[in-house]
This record gives sequence, structure tokens and C-alpha cells, in this order.
Amino acid sequence: MVSGKGRGERILVTGGAGFIGSHTVVELLRQGYKVWVMDNLQNSCVEALHRVCHLVGPRLSPNLQFHHGDLCNPADLDRLFNASSSFDAVIHFAGLKGVGDSVVNPLHYYHNNIVGTVNLFQAMAKFNCKKMVFSSSATVYGQPEEVPCAEESKLHAMNPYGRSKLFAEEMGRDIEKAGGEGEWRMIFLRYFNPVGAHESGKLGEDPRGIPNNLMPYIQQVAVGRLPHLNVYGHDYPTNDGTAVRDYIHVMDLAHGHVAALRKLFANDTIGCTAYNLGTGRGTSVLEMVAAFEKASGKKIPIKMCPRRPGDATAVYASTEKAEKELGWKAKYGIEEMCRDQWNWVSNNPWGYQGNH
Amino acid sequence: MVSGKGRGERILVTGGAGFIGSHTVVELLRQGYKVWVMDNLQNSCVEALHRVCHLVGPRLSPNLQFHHGDLCNPADLDRLFNASSSFDAVIHFAGLKGVGDSVVNPLHYYHNNIVGTVNLFQAMAKFNCKKMVFSSSATVYGQPEEVPCAEESKLHAMNPYGRSKLFAEEMGRDIEKAGGEGEWRMIFLRYFNPVGAHESGKLGEDPRGIPNNLMPYIQQVAVGRLPHLNVYGHDYPTNDGTAVRDYIHVMDLAHGHVAALRKLFANDTIGCTAYNLGTGRGTSVLEMVAAFEKASGKKIPIKMCPRRPGDATAVYASTEKAEKELGWKAKYGIEEMCRDQWNWVSNNPWGYQGNH
Repeated sequence: MVSGKGRGERILVTGGAGFIGSHTVVELLRQGYKVWVMDNLQNSCVEALHRVCHLVGPRLSPNLQFHHGDLCNPADLDRLFNASSSFDAVIHFAGLKGVGDSVVNPLHYYHNNIVGTVNLFQAMAKFNCKKMVFSSSATVYGQPEEVPCAEESKLHAMNPYGRSKLFAEEMGRDIEKAGGEGEWRMIFLRYFNPVGAHESGKLGEDPRGIPNNLMPYIQQVAVGRLPHLNVYGHDYPTNDGTAVRDYIHVMDLAHGHVAALRKLFANDTIGCTAYNLGTGRGTSVLEMVAAFEKASGKKIPIKMCPRRPGDATAVYASTEKAEKELGWKAKYGIEEMCRDQWNWVSNNPWGYQGNH
Repeated sequence: MVSGKGRGERILVTGGAGFIGSHTVVELLRQGYKVWVMDNLQNSCVEALHRVCHLVGPRLSPNLQFHHGDLCNPADLDRLFNASSSFDAVIHFAGLKGVGDSVVNPLHYYHNNIVGTVNLFQAMAKFNCKKMVFSSSATVYGQPEEVPCAEESKLHAMNPYGRSKLFAEEMGRDIEKAGGEGEWRMIFLRYFNPVGAHESGKLGEDPRGIPNNLMPYIQQVAVGRLPHLNVYGHDYPTNDGTAVRDYIHVMDLAHGHVAALRKLFANDTIGCTAYNLGTGRGTSVLEMVAAFEKASGKKIPIKMCPRRPGDATAVYASTEKAEKELGWKAKYGIEEMCRDQWNWVSNNPWGYQGNH
């Protein structure tokens, strides 16, 4: 069990204005870390960080600094590492995250996610900052041969987004191996399906364009921006025929990152290791829709559609390793996920941009 | 069967001053192509291109242009694509190529080979040049489950060098798929073990530092720069107990590239496809040593050492696909490989740098 507050360690958070990043920054500040966010604001907005400051209050908000910059530009990284005399650790969220989008624009994904990550590794090596928490994804399990997915399972990416995550992990492992004992310490956090929002209703997911994932889609149907929810596949061998996923509250993810960071600063040998961040519980599409209807009091019209090629029947996490080695376990169930999601969306129907 | 001379098509050759690159440029010029070489000269030297000009003569040498530049610097690419109003196709040799070196310096490999390739893809997309021949490697077969290795075998990289080749192929396939029918045309050439030299004795391999591969090593023992050859493993289940590989003459590789280029300019649908460039014949270490001793008249002292972890017993190519679809087949045997290698090294014992 890894515990204890931060002692003012200096953390670079790439992509810290994004969905999971911004929620994690709140927890980092509350735990006593000093945080530098670097974000290109390509799929996020700085208003999220203003709200972070508001949430943590005037005592802690001076511990947050924002730098508008792009990992694809090595000069931006150099400037930041120089200006702040390097960091004690990096949490690397920055990256594009749409599976479907990655199939249409693979080069965009390889440039942002891979070139960005190589540049970051190079800056870290140059400035002797060798501790990293990396945003990986359950997509690295592909269509899992068995569930729950355990960290040591065979990995297999099925699209450019997944390949960018898997390859970043592979690069990390090679770099750590080459570094010699005790040099690099890296933790890959494999997220299952992040949903929910900050309990205050001030922070949440603000996707641009038509969302690909279930929860942002439901949320847009709930507020009337989209007419109905397409449910892909109703003949899966599951309880109600719809696909099963492991949804996890974004605040559970935020706590998972803090736990991983503590592990980086602890004394035990870790080298390079991966943890699932999931609840270990599978939820079907229809169960999620029902929970959201209950939380919101809104009816979500659905339309049954054929299965999408490549979609797995059921994917959920084995949570044992994270529980044992990080002392971390998800606390929230789908009721809280839907409650906080609805609280966020009903307070911010147009996201951070205000009313249009 | 793809045949016919080039009609002045404009070809960008990255890494064209290197071992395989320089030999290929000779053939490209002879076949009537216009060639722009971009090379960072990190592991090559411009003298190789002077010799190329000498070999092709004053009529063809004006068709070769050299640009000192680095794929890792997108501005270099932009400048070249702009200055030459784009290209009809790219042959992408540039990259680091030492397996052992890649294990020690993985970040260097990911930066040079992956970031460089992403930048190249981006420049090609921007300037609407969508035909590429890419230098892949038989390392993408890992420890093959069966030999001969066929192109459709399962791929598996075992070190950062191999991962950089495999990932470049994967990126290429994703990019081609996203491009729509008939847009991108890519050929991955998977080289087996390139050896030999130009029959003139003017061009050959000029490795820096202690060589990792068998042939450059033998060659340095022959000229007295190294005392003996280490043979790793003499208890493999092969004829003489030493490991078996598929050595291929660099001029056969050069012809293979010309054949691939013709295929890119032909009318049939190709999308993205891979070809082995090998002879299809396996040769053991001791057979190669004996052939070299015969060609050179020199005794090569050997020292038997234990197997190296990760080395496969026997790797050789299935050559059917290249023969059928490219109309290409290796012509040279190990006698010619050793003859030309010895001719090169005895005329240039210190490589391109002259006597030291």
C-alpha cells in the first residue's frame, strides 16, 4: 500500500487541461504537489484550469502553472524544462483519443501521439527526469481472449489509436531496459471506459463534434442535441444482448494517478510496469442507459443497430494488481457516474464555452 | 512481370548515400530515373555519391542531386519538396540499422527511424507524393515459426530496431487504408542479410565502429583490423551446428528496388504490400567463412562462443511472391558475394575515408 501526501514534488502534466488531466490536477494540488500543465488546447480549453483553481481555492491555486505548448514542437519542451529547471516526474496525458477518428486520420494520430511521446522522452532524458506515469488504454488488449483482462495478457492493437498506445508502452519498456537499474521508473495506466465528472459539476468532458463514446453520446441525447442513441449490436451473448464494458468514474481515475505517482516516488524497484484502472465490473449498454435515465429523469430514445466490426462482446478489468501494488480501488458505481455526469451536463449543456 | 525503363520519373531517395542506398542509386540512374538523395551523413559519406557519379558517367550523373538534410527536421523536408516541386515516388532507406545498438540506445532509434518516417509521410501527404518503397527487414519475422519466411507470416519484433521497422510498416498500412482506393501505393521490402559490394570495387559497406554483422566482421578480420571472428553457437540443429541465414548480394537488392519502383508506377492495384528480398537459400556461418577464405585467399581465424540469446537457428526467405509479382529474383550466390566483398575491401581497406 502506497500512501502519504506529496511533499511539494514538481510534476509536469501534459494534456492537463483535458478531461482526465484536469480532474487529476485537482487531486494533485490537493495532495500537495506543484503542477505545471503543458497543453496545446487542441481538444481542451483553458477554462477547465480556471475552474480547477476555483475548486482548490486561493491557497493551492498558486501551485498550478499553465504553459501553452505542443509536444510535437521540441523547442516548447526545451523551453519549459529549462524555465522550470526540470521536474520530479511527468504525467503524460497529452494525445488524441478517438478510435474512429484515428482510422480516418492515422497520420495525425501517429504525429501527435508517437512523435509527441518520443519528444517528451528525449526532453526527460536530457533534463534527467526519469519518472513517468503514462495514459495507456484498455484498447491494448484488443479483443481480449479472456476477461477480466489481466495486465500480463497478450497485447494487440486493432486501430491506429490503439497502436499509438501500445507502441508508446513498448518504447517505454525499451528505454527503461536500456537505462540500467534504478534509472527510469514508468507506470502505464490502462484506462477502461472513463465517464462521470467532478462532483462539483464544475469539471467534466467537453468533446468537440459528434462523440464516439457511449456516455458523451447519451448526454447529448439527454440535452436534446442528438435525437436518439444508436446501440450497436443487440445479439451479443450477454444478459440483455448489448455489449459489456467497464465504466470508471473520472475521479477514481484521478485518484489512481495520484496512487501511481506515489509509487514512482516510493523506494521499491518498479522499472516499467502497467496497471489496469477499471472497476472490475461489466455494465451493458442498456444497463447504462437505464442508470442514466434514472439519474437524469430523462428518457433516452434508442435505436438498435447492427454490431460494429471489431467491437468485442465484453471487456472488463482485472483489478487485483492495482489494488495490491498501488493500494488503489475504484469507489464509484454507475449510479454516481450517471449522477455526476448529469450534474455536469445539466449545469454546462454547452461545455466550457458557455451558451451559444 | 514488371519491366521497362524509367521515363525520367523523379525519385527522392532518403539515406541514398548509405550502403544499400548508394548501390540502388547507380541502378536508378542507369534505368533513366532522376534522383534526389537526402542524407544526414550520420552513418554514410558523400564520397559514395561521387563514386556513383563516376560509375554512371558524365551523361547520367547530372540526373543525381544531393541534399544534406535530416528527416527528423521537418523544415529540411519542406525545403526539398518545395525546391524540387515534389517527387513521383520516394525510396525510404534512411534509418539506423544496428540491432545491438538499438538495444543500448532505443530512444535514438525511435527518434531517427520513427519520427523521421512520420515526418516523411507528412511531407509526402502535403506535397501529394503517395508512392513509397520502404526498407523493411526480415527482423519483422522475429524468430520465425517456420522457414522459409513467407510475407503473410505473423510478424513479431524482438528489439527496438525491429520494432521501428514493424511499426513503420503498420503506420504505412493504416495510412494507405485511410487514403481511399488508389491513393497511396506502398511497397515494403524485407531485406534478409545484405552483403557483397558493387562489382567495380568502388562501392561497398563502410561501417563505423566494430561491426555487428557477420560479413563486415569477417572482412575486418581478413584485413587484420580484428584478430578473429566470434562464431555464436555451434550446437544449432543445422548441418555444421552454426546458425543459418539468407545472405543476399547488395546488387540483387538494388535490382529489387528498381523492380519495386516499376511496380509502383504500373497500373495494377497494389495498395500496401510487402516483398521479401532474399535468395531463398540458407548458408551457415562456417559455409560463409569457407567461401570468403576461398575468395580472398586469407585464413579467417574463428573462436567458438555460446549462442546469443534471441538468435534464431535458421532464417531464410520465401521468394515466390517477389518472383511472381515483381519479376525479380536474386542472381548472385555466395561466391560472387564473397568475391565482390573482397574486391571492395582489398581496394578500400579503410572504406571511403582513404588510408589512415
